[in-house]
Amino acid sequence: MAKPDRLIYLALGGAGEIGMNMYVYGYGPQDAERFIVVDCGVTFPNMDSSPGVDLIVPDPHWLQARADRIEAIFITHAHEDHVGAVGHLFPRLKAPVIYARRFTAAHAKLKMERAGQDTTLVHQVDAWPRTVEAGPFTVGFLPVSHSIPEASSLVIDTPAGRIVHSADFKIDATPIVGEPFQPELFREVGAKGVKALICDSTNVFVSHPGRSEASLSEALGAVMRETKGMVVATTFASNVARLKTLAEAGQAAGRSVLVLGRAMRQMLATARTAEVLDSFPPVLEPQDAADVARGKLLVLATGSQGERRAASAQLAAGSYQGIELKPGDLFLFSSKTIPGNEVEVARILNQLSERGIRAIDDTDGRYHVSGHPNRPDLVSMHGLIDPVTVIPNHGEHRHLTAHAELARELGRKGLVAANGAIVDVTDEARIVGHAETGRLYLDGSTMIGAMEGVVRDRLRMALRGHLAVSVIFDEEGRPMGGVWVEGLGLPDTRRYPDGLAAAVEAAIDQSLGRAKRSDLADDDAVERMVVQASNRICMDLVGKKPVVTVMISRLD
Amino acid sequence: MAKPDRLIYLALGGAGEIGMNMYVYGYGPQDAERFIVVDCGVTFPNMDSSPGVDLIVPDPHWLQARADRIEAIFITHAHEDHVGAVGHLFPRLKAPVIYARRFTAAHAKLKMERAGQDTTLVHQVDAWPRTVEAGPFTVGFLPVSHSIPEASSLVIDTPAGRIVHSADFKIDATPIVGEPFQPELFREVGAKGVKALICDSTNVFVSHPGRSEASLSEALGAVMRETKGMVVATTFASNVARLKTLAEAGQAAGRSVLVLGRAMRQMLATARTAEVLDSFPPVLEPQDAADVARGKLLVLATGSQGERRAASAQLAAGSYQGIELKPGDLFLFSSKTIPGNEVEVARILNQLSERGIRAIDDTDGRYHVSGHPNRPDLVSMHGLIDPVTVIPNHGEHRHLTAHAELARELGRKGLVAANGAIVDVTDEARIVGHAETGRLYLDGSTMIGAMEGVVRDRLRMALRGHLAVSVIFDEEGRPMGGVWVEGLGLPDTRRYPDGLAAAVEAAIDQSLGRAKRSDLADDDAVERMVVQASNRICMDLVGKKPVVTVMISRLD
Repeated sequence: MAKPDRLIYLALGGAGEIGMNMYVYGYGPQDAERFIVVDCGVTFPNMDSSPGVDLIVPDPHWLQARADRIEAIFITHAHEDHVGAVGHLFPRLKAPVIYARRFTAAHAKLKMERAGQDTTLVHQVDAWPRTVEAGPFTVGFLPVSHSIPEASSLVIDTPAGRIVHSADFKIDATPIVGEPFQPELFREVGAKGVKALICDSTNVFVSHPGRSEASLSEALGAVMRETKGMVVATTFASNVARLKTLAEAGQAAGRSVLVLGRAMRQMLATARTAEVLDSFPPVLEPQDAADVARGKLLVLATGSQGERRAASAQLAAGSYQGIELKPGDLFLFSSKTIPGNEVEVARILNQLSERGIRAIDDTDGRYHVSGHPNRPDLVSMHGLIDPVTVIPNHGEHRHLTAHAELARELGRKGLVAANGAIVDVTDEARIVGHAETGRLYLDGSTMIGAMEGVVRDRLRMALRGHLAVSVIFDEEGRPMGGVWVEGLGLPDTRRYPDGLAAAVEAAIDQSLGRAKRSDLADDDAVERMVVQASNRICMDLVGKKPVVTVMISRLD
Repeated sequence: MAKPDRLIYLALGGAGEIGMNMYVYGYGPQDAERFIVVDCGVTFPNMDSSPGVDLIVPDPHWLQARADRIEAIFITHAHEDHVGAVGHLFPRLKAPVIYARRFTAAHAKLKMERAGQDTTLVHQVDAWPRTVEAGPFTVGFLPVSHSIPEASSLVIDTPAGRIVHSADFKIDATPIVGEPFQPELFREVGAKGVKALICDSTNVFVSHPGRSEASLSEALGAVMRETKGMVVATTFASNVARLKTLAEAGQAAGRSVLVLGRAMRQMLATARTAEVLDSFPPVLEPQDAADVARGKLLVLATGSQGERRAASAQLAAGSYQGIELKPGDLFLFSSKTIPGNEVEVARILNQLSERGIRAIDDTDGRYHVSGHPNRPDLVSMHGLIDPVTVIPNHGEHRHLTAHAELARELGRKGLVAANGAIVDVTDEARIVGHAETGRLYLDGSTMIGAMEGVVRDRLRMALRGHLAVSVIFDEEGRPMGGVWVEGLGLPDTRRYPDGLAAAVEAAIDQSLGRAKRSDLADDDAVERMVVQASNRICMDLVGKKPVVTVMISRLD
C-alpha cells in the first residue's frame, strides 16, 4: 500500500537558539516528500565555545542526504541570520533555485558570489498576491514590517492546506522602511484556514506592545539638536530602518551624514540599487567630513555590539578614518546589546568615559525599538491568522515554551518543536520523528563539524597551555642527546634553575633513562611515558597539566 | 628643608572596574608615608581575555616596593572581591597585622590558611566606637548594612583630618543580617568634618531608592507557598542575607532547607561559628532530603551566574547529589546576572525549559534586591557624611564619572581617581602622581603577570591553532629524513592527499631543499623558513596562519 501524503515541518536551525535560521517544509509520501527550505542563516562564534571560528551555520546533513528532493530555497529577508549561510551551504544543497524579493535577492546574490556559486540561481520574485510554484508548494511573499526593507512572511499552500511562516516581523504602521504592517492582508490570508503558524518568538517575554520605528524621531531629533559637537550613532549595519531614522533626524537638525564601516556602507548601497531607500539623506565621503563643523556632523558607525575591529570600538579607542571624538561630542547606542556582548559594549562606554565623551547606552530604551513582536503583538498575529496550531520558532527553548503556552492560553494548540523535531502538520500537528541537527564552523576557508574536536583542542590549549616534545632515538634505539621541550602558554617557574621547559626535559630524560629497552622501541609506550612525566612535573611545579605533543624520531 | 606631611589615597584595584578592590592610604612626608591597605580582593577570569586562569588579583608591586612602610591591612567585609586575595598577596606585602571584624576575620584566616600564611596575623576587632591605631592612622569599623554580616565602612582619622571609606553598602533599615543602617551614626561621624568620602559607585545609574532585603519576604513567601513541588533558589553563596531571607520564607511555608554547593555551606558554617546567624532555620543533610516530600523542600543552590560546575548548572543539566528536578518544581534566580554571564544563565533557563521545569529569572526584579547604594542612596550618604570631596570607587570608569558628577551637582568636589591615580587629600584633593597598577593571574599554583605573554600565547593558539615542527639535521648539516609536523586545533583538508600536516611537511621539505647551505646552518634562518613555509601552505589550504613551534636538532 502506498504511504499517504503528509505535510511536515522541521527546523535545522533557529528553534532553540536565536540565530542561524533554517527551516524545511516537506510534502509527499513519507520518505519521499518534496522539500522547500526557508532561510539559510548564520550565527556568530565566541571565545567560550568557538574560538578562532569565523561563522557558524546549521549542519545541513539531514537535508544534504535528501538534496535531490529539494524544490527551492526561499529567503524571507536580508538579515545575516536568515541569508548569511546561503553561499556557504549551497554546495551541499544544490537547490535548483533560490527565491527572494528584490532587495533580499541582491544580498543572496552577493553571498552566492562570494562563495563562488552561481548567482543566476537567485530568482527575484514579486510580493503577494503573486506566488511561485515549487513542486507541491505554492509560496507567496507577504510584506511585513521589520527593520529592513521587503521583509516578508511566507504563505505556503499545499494540497494538505495552508501554512503561514511569519519570519521576523513587528507590527508597525510606520516602519520608516519597508511596507507598513497590513492587518487586513494577514486576516485575509488567515480567513482561508491555516493549519499552522510558524512564528517569531524572540520577544515573547516583553509584555508591552511593540513601539513603532517612527516613535524614535522625536527623542533622536532632540539629541541631534541639543548636542554641541559631533553625534556618533551606532546600530546594526543591517537595521536599514534605523539608519534612515537616524540620518533623517540628523538632517532635520542640519547635520551632514557620514557612514563609517564596510557592512553599513554595503547595506546602504544595496538598498539604493534595489530602490528601497528613497529619500535617504546624502552621505559624505570620509575625506569631506573634515570640512564640516563638528556640530554639523552625524556619524553612523558599525559595531553596536562592541566588536573590536568595527568603527565604534576604534572611535572609542582613538580614531577611525581620520574621525576623532572629543569632549562635547556624543556617542549614542541606538541598539540593543545582545546577551553575551555586555562586556564589549561596556568597554566602549568606559573608554569614552575616560576621554570625557558623553555616551548614551541602551538602558533607557528611548533610542531603540525592537524589530520583533512583543507578547501583545503575538496575540494580534495569532488572532489575525487564527491557525489551528502555533509552532514557535526564532527563539531559545524558553522562548518557544512561553510562546506555545501563550498560544494555548488563547485557545489554540501550541507545539514546541526545537531543532530536529519533525512535525507532521497534515492533521493534528504532532512530532513524528527526529532529524539529527548540529552546527558547522566556517574556519578560515574550510568548513568543520562542531563536534570534530578541532575547536575542543583549541580550548584545551587555551585552558592548559601546550608542550611540544621532540625525542630522537639513535640507531641502537637509545634516546639521543636529551629530549627537547618547548612550552607555549605556560607560566615559567623559579623552582627549577633553567625554568619549566628545562625541568620537563630533565624529568622526561630521567623517565626514559629508567625505561626498558622494549618500551623504548615502542612509540606508543614512549609517548605515554613522555606525557606522564610532563604532566607530573608540570603539576608539581606550576599546578597545571598542559596539552602535550610528542614527536618521536628514530635514526635508522 | 623637610618635606611636609601629606595624606594620600590610591586605588590599586577596584576603581575603573567592579572587582579586586584594593586601596591604599598614606600619611607622612612624600616618599616616606606610612601606609594602610583597605581590602585585598579578587576578580574572576573569562575565556575572552584570561583563559585557563584561576583567579585575578591586583598587581601590588607599587606597594611591594614600599612594603616596609605598611602598618596594617583592613578588611571591610567578607566578600571575595574584598578579602579573596589576602592569602595570595600576603607574601608580597608582609603587613604586620590584618584587622577585621569577627566574621570577616574568620574568612581572612581561611584565606591565609589556604595560602600557607600565618593566620595569627589576623586580628579580630570590635566595631565603632572602638578604633585601632596603625601608625599615624586611627581606624574604626562603622557598621553598615550590606548583604553580608558585619559589613563596615571605615572611619580613618589622621593628623591631616578624617576620611570615610564607605566600602560596599546599602541603606537598609531591615537588612535581615548585619546591623541596620544607622543614619545618625554616619551623621555623627560626618559632623567632625570629613576631608573625603571614598564611596561605592556600583549602582550610580539606578535612579530609584534601594529596596530593603526585608521587602522580598512577601514575594518569596508566595512562591514558596504556591509551588506544588520542590523550590530551588540560587543566589551568590556569599549573600548571607539572601540565604536567610530565602530559608525563612521556605520555613514559613513548611519547607525544610537543603543547601547544595561547597561555597554556600562554608559561608553558612563560618557565619554560625561567628555567631552572626542566629535564627537561621535548621538545614538538612543531602541524604535526609530523600525522606522529605517534594512540596516540603527548599533547596538553596550555588551557581547563580551559571557557573558550569556549580550546583545550579548541574541540577539544570540533570541532578546533583541525588537531587533531581521534575515538572512541578520551580527554579528561582534570587540574584542579578552580572554582565558577561547572560549566556551561561540562559543556558540553565533553556535546559530547565527543555525538561519542563518552571523557572523565574532575574528580569522582573521581585526576587532580588541589590546590596549596593542606588543614586538616591548616594545622595543620602553624601549628605550624612558631608565631605569636602567625594572620590568614587567600586565601579567601572563610567560609574566613577557619573558619581563624581553627582557629587558636583550636590555642591561638593567630585574627583575621578581610577586605579593608579595618587590623590593628595591633605588640602584640596587633587591627583599628584601615578602608580603603575595591573593584574596578576593565579594560574594553577603560580602567579603570573597579565602582561607576561603567557595568556596571550594561549589566546593565539585558541584563535589560530598550533603546529609543532621537528627538523633534524645530519652531521653534514643536511635535513634528515623529512621534517615532522603535528597540528592541533587545525582543520584538516581534503585538498592534499594525506591531509594538512603532510602538506605542511612537504612544503617545509621543499623550502629547506632550496635553501643555501649557510642558511641551513643557521637556526634562526631555518626557523624563519619553516614558519614562512607553514604559514603559506596553511593559508592556501585552510585559510589560517597557525602558531608554529619549531624544534631544530643537529647531530654532531
